[in-house]
Amino acid sequence: MKTIDIPTLILDEKKCIRNIQRMADKARRHNLHFRPHFKTHQSLEIGGWFKEEGVNSITVSSLLMAEYFSTEWDDITVAFPVNPRETDRLNALAGKIKVNILIESAEVVALLHEKLKWTVGFFVKIDTGSHRTGLQPDDYTTINEILRLSSTGSLLQFKGFLSHAGHTYHAKSKEEILNIHQQELRQMQTLKGHYVNQWPELLLSVGDTPSCSIADDFSGMDEIRPGNFVFYDLMQSQLGVCEPEDIAVAVACPVAARHPERNEIVVYGGAVHLSKDHLQQWPEGDIYGCVALPENNGWGKLINDLSVTRLSQEHGIVSVPEQFFQEIHIGDLLFILPVHSCLTADMYCSYTATNGRKIKKTRSI
Amino acid sequence: MKTIDIPTLILDEKKCIRNIQRMADKARRHNLHFRPHFKTHQSLEIGGWFKEEGVNSITVSSLLMAEYFSTEWDDITVAFPVNPRETDRLNALAGKIKVNILIESAEVVALLHEKLKWTVGFFVKIDTGSHRTGLQPDDYTTINEILRLSSTGSLLQFKGFLSHAGHTYHAKSKEEILNIHQQELRQMQTLKGHYVNQWPELLLSVGDTPSCSIADDFSGMDEIRPGNFVFYDLMQSQLGVCEPEDIAVAVACPVAARHPERNEIVVYGGAVHLSKDHLQQWPEGDIYGCVALPENNGWGKLINDLSVTRLSQEHGIVSVPEQFFQEIHIGDLLFILPVHSCLTADMYCSYTATNGRKIKKTRSI
Repeated sequence: MKTIDIPTLILDEKKCIRNIQRMADKARRHNLHFRPHFKTHQSLEIGGWFKEEGVNSITVSSLLMAEYFSTEWDDITVAFPVNPRETDRLNALAGKIKVNILIESAEVVALLHEKLKWTVGFFVKIDTGSHRTGLQPDDYTTINEILRLSSTGSLLQFKGFLSHAGHTYHAKSKEEILNIHQQELRQMQTLKGHYVNQWPELLLSVGDTPSCSIADDFSGMDEIRPGNFVFYDLMQSQLGVCEPEDIAVAVACPVAARHPERNEIVVYGGAVHLSKDHLQQWPEGDIYGCVALPENNGWGKLINDLSVTRLSQEHGIVSVPEQFFQEIHIGDLLFILPVHSCLTADMYCSYTATNGRKIKKTRSI
Repeated sequence: MKTIDIPTLILDEKKCIRNIQRMADKARRHNLHFRPHFKTHQSLEIGGWFKEEGVNSITVSSLLMAEYFSTEWDDITVAFPVNPRETDRLNALAGKIKVNILIESAEVVALLHEKLKWTVGFFVKIDTGSHRTGLQPDDYTTINEILRLSSTGSLLQFKGFLSHAGHTYHAKSKEEILNIHQQELRQMQTLKGHYVNQWPELLLSVGDTPSCSIADDFSGMDEIRPGNFVFYDLMQSQLGVCEPEDIAVAVACPVAARHPERNEIVVYGGAVHLSKDHLQQWPEGDIYGCVALPENNGWGKLINDLSVTRLSQEHGIVSVPEQFFQEIHIGDLLFILPVHSCLTADMYCSYTATNGRKIKKTRSI
């Protein structure tokens, strides 16, 4: 840590591996195929830690990410509605490995019939309530049309139904998360009931981090795809989905100025190092991160009252209760735990492990 | 534009050069030294467009950025409180070019006395009301102590006082921006009055984009350092500081899904492509960008009602009024004008000019 001179994304390997093991155990316990989402860590090396848990297939959110992982993974679901401008990239990938895509309109099936050169699996994307993408679970007309049209060619292979209950991120309690999860299970089970005779091998794939972390009923589901759990973050901790001790990444930021008159400290570490995602319901108002102090080559207990209250491009303003103010000096390092680890990690091209080792990663862009 | 297949940061060179020329003209008209902030564009090539306007010195917000620009610029102010962990980097830079830094405590002067190997200019950072960094303008005790202590060594050269009225970004009207600007001028003029006998060559450096764009009184100021004006953005347009037609960057995003039942379109283009900065006071609620349709290799008029209302990592949800819905198809490109161009541009390693040419840039990280 002594050599850190600029904002640096630190990874606590032990916490990360423990998060991976726990979720892999859970999948085994529930007899679920575990297809983790790799958009959060975006690292081949961290991917290797999943292989040690027997994971052999993954989820990503773009074809670019699939390209990156295709050097070591040969079964990838791209969990994003197909972008017809990328059919060349899709063909290149599908010629090399097993690829699944998401479809939610017959229009796209027609486009793919024209362009596809290789076999591609597809899931019909179902909107179980997050209203981001997907078909309504009772939109049998469109689903039937997609299945009918896809069957007229030989390259599109129907795999099943896939949903992402992203609205659990806005839940106000664990109970609400579990209610959303139960609703998703019922909607997906009903769909399967409707189509299983015609497609006996169809799969049901679900899996947001909040539900997968706390639910204990996955009846009828075949596959889970959580991603954020690999690092967790303050958002998940506030939801009650993880403990603050499970958060596996932090941004180490040098202290650049102290303002005792308003109990604020300025760190080198701003919106470009943390992202502007914030928590709205923290007791003290909007925050962009919480601070832990250095401890044993990593960080110690998270101090709730020590939080990042404002961000500009390179500056972070940390609100510091009086009892901590005298402990923090210009040139010290503060560890800022991110509100949303997916966005924070995406900004960096590598992690620094707590022992100083660099771990390479890619970025979404 | 036909070859764009993924979210791509597009730069309209003509608009950008016009923004540069206008600000350079204004500086000349007011006899101000123009030291533009390069944190927004972070590009040597765009820097060259400033050289054509006679600019010979710049501002950046980190030593990393100063290192990048030092291959073509030999007079750089690093407008961030000195980070004592980076004294090696500072020494390497100061051995090569003229560097100015910001100081706001005597403690840092003492640290620099120990570490500095080369002459470095410094401005005392003054807080004229944004309460991010800097000393209160009447904190003569600390200012005197900094000036006294810095004079005991030979390497720290006092240049003057520097402020950044960042609170203009939160103003509700042009009048409020101008009031903040006038207050800043008075505070800085008073400071100069206090110290000019002892330091007859001291400079006053100001310059946020809102004030520099609309103010016409810079009495007593020596230097301006605006940065965002090079591209402007929706935030500046909402402030009344620029016209929507002045915004020089947009993210071209492929349309991936249509949801007529809720008048929404999903684009490939999310928080990692736009940033999560948002506008709170737009008539329709929080938005993360406004959309323009493709036109003549660039984008046409911004359509206010067509706005990005939600973002996840790779997805952007665009709210589309009914009259536009039938015009937009899966596979089309939408141009999303950013809320805050500094954060959006920072995510990319290059711009694509409207003629398809790549323009390289660096990033803050």
